[in-house]
Amino acid sequence: MILHGYFRSTASWRVRIALGLKGLEAVQASHHLRKGDQRAPDYLALNPQGLLPAFVTDDGAVLTQSLAIIEYLDEVAPQPSLLPADAVLKAKVRAVAQVVACDIHPVQNLKVLQRLRDLGLAEEQVQAWAATTIEEGLDAVDKLLADQPGPFAFGDAPTLADICIVPQLGNARRFGVDIRWPRLAALEAACLELPAFQNAVPGQQPDAE
Amino acid sequence: MILHGYFRSTASWRVRIALGLKGLEAVQASHHLRKGDQRAPDYLALNPQGLLPAFVTDDGAVLTQSLAIIEYLDEVAPQPSLLPADAVLKAKVRAVAQVVACDIHPVQNLKVLQRLRDLGLAEEQVQAWAATTIEEGLDAVDKLLADQPGPFAFGDAPTLADICIVPQLGNARRFGVDIRWPRLAALEAACLELPAFQNAVPGQQPDAE
Repeated sequence: MILHGYFRSTASWRVRIALGLKGLEAVQASHHLRKGDQRAPDYLALNPQGLLPAFVTDDGAVLTQSLAIIEYLDEVAPQPSLLPADAVLKAKVRAVAQVVACDIHPVQNLKVLQRLRDLGLAEEQVQAWAATTIEEGLDAVDKLLADQPGPFAFGDAPTLADICIVPQLGNARRFGVDIRWPRLAALEAACLELPAFQNAVPGQQPDAE
Repeated sequence: MILHGYFRSTASWRVRIALGLKGLEAVQASHHLRKGDQRAPDYLALNPQGLLPAFVTDDGAVLTQSLAIIEYLDEVAPQPSLLPADAVLKAKVRAVAQVVACDIHPVQNLKVLQRLRDLGLAEEQVQAWAATTIEEGLDAVDKLLADQPGPFAFGDAPTLADICIVPQLGNARRFGVDIRWPRLAALEAACLELPAFQNAVPGQQPDAE
């Protein structure tokens, strides 16, 4: 298995956590986002979106989109499960993951922020765009978790929701966002006691700068 | 079951298609996006994100995020399945759905475009932002489907991928995007032969203007 990613890419980070929780190892192929490696022809042949990550299975199938990759891993290596068995709870876990993966990350990723700069916005406006997007999204996540028991996002084991929240909190700090959600900080702390989360942080990756 | 949506919301449209394919009926509760109904306190109590759709099950559970809602419907009403049984193919279907639901729609939805206007961008820049986002995303979808048989996105039955692509094509036209992808136009035509897709189009909804 090969994970095409980048140490700081939060979407790659999610897949690294999932691999760790499953006890799986993938070769890491690094593509430097700021240098534009993800738009090189050989990478576009793998993922026409030019986004990270891409995941190559042992059979050579190429999968894209971090949530789809993680659900694939959950299907081929079912233990420990990354989703609750109950259909309603499963939908709630996926919804929280999608708040991060649909409504936060793609609206403040490198590509979108560069587009804002190209349109002539000042750097402080670009940074405020990112911070506001993150804050509004995490506010919603916090409310969606209000009636769920800890220590993780949904009870006593990490799920797809934690896998998305923890990298997003790391990204939030890079944009100077105050982590004003005690419930999210607490689930992050619970996650970071686990080797799968510890080993997936950007600073632990071979391509970390 | 209650579907809180809006006739033009592509995310609500996706859920309408899924309900139709499953032969399920939900009461439609309309929230006028341009008038800001989705930010009214009673709706925020239902969905703290202030986004459409929200879905209330017969047991009163409130679900958010269209892909999570659709996968819930696929689990509680398994026939006809909206995902292939094969794990790799299932991941590919989900990835195409996520290109639309993560990387196109949230980057050019009403809220983001208004934020661009509030930052002082000219209307033509705002429209170009939307069109470019749609074009880049559908270019990727088209390439991801290149080796998949028709007439639908993934073979001879509609899946979650078609459910996301068809509303996105409708949205593309609203932004004046030329539908330059014959494969996508063909799958849309195949879908629109089915009552579930016919009945879900914005013009057929009770709140259509």
